[in-house]
Amino acid sequence: MEHLGRHVIIELWGCSNVINDTEHVKSAMLDAVRAANATLLNIYVHTFSPQGVTGVAVLSESHLSIHTWPEHGYVAADVFTCGATTNPQAAAEVLAERFESKHPIVTEVERGVFPEVPSRGGSKRPRKLAGV
Amino acid sequence: MEHLGRHVIIELWGCSNVINDTEHVKSAMLDAVRAANATLLNIYVHTFSPQGVTGVAVLSESHLSIHTWPEHGYVAADVFTCGATTNPQAAAEVLAERFESKHPIVTEVERGVFPEVPSRGGSKRPRKLAGV
Repeated sequence: MEHLGRHVIIELWGCSNVINDTEHVKSAMLDAVRAANATLLNIYVHTFSPQGVTGVAVLSESHLSIHTWPEHGYVAADVFTCGATTNPQAAAEVLAERFESKHPIVTEVERGVFPEVPSRGGSKRPRKLAGV
Repeated sequence: MEHLGRHVIIELWGCSNVINDTEHVKSAMLDAVRAANATLLNIYVHTFSPQGVTGVAVLSESHLSIHTWPEHGYVAADVFTCGATTNPQAAAEVLAERFESKHPIVTEVERGVFPEVPSRGGSKRPRKLAGV
């Protein structure tokens, strides 16, 4: 194993106004957790005034977060998972669909990429985070 | 304003065993939230067996998350903030210090970078997420 986690950074533009509906956001998050084949430990959703929703799901395999800007039709989402049985990309697809995003941008970053092992007596140095 | 949020991706290697102490992790998270000048809405911390801690703080300005792998001396942390008065880099510094990381790697990503406006009749297309 070369890395400990997969972190999918999701920029959703052109979303419909469902992203200002707290119950819809929560329901989409739960669907995304299921799609990722992850185990929910806790979910917390907050409604902002006059608009906007933030939600974070803590998972046995890391977390899923959502921040919505209805005034811009934009959602910032992150799905971070560890383990071989989870699929954060499937969660990203569900979120894009449930928020009716016309312009989703999905970027995957490896997290916990093991530092390089020194070849001969060199000091142990971390290597640059892959993909960033 | 060209982007809505700042997301600091923090890879902490060479951490001491304090990252397996749930109360220490929670205390470090709260210190980091204060350092970022952010407002805490909710905090949830989970202790794994036989080791490892996950914690997520939901903020008025987005979130802070921590996942620790004591067996690797590694912590994956994310600090996502919006607004001009918060400082996610200050939170990153606090986390590196409190977890006694010998090899911190900090990468900042802009989130909610506004899509390009078409110059002449072109379709509106999102531009690539800066920094990723």
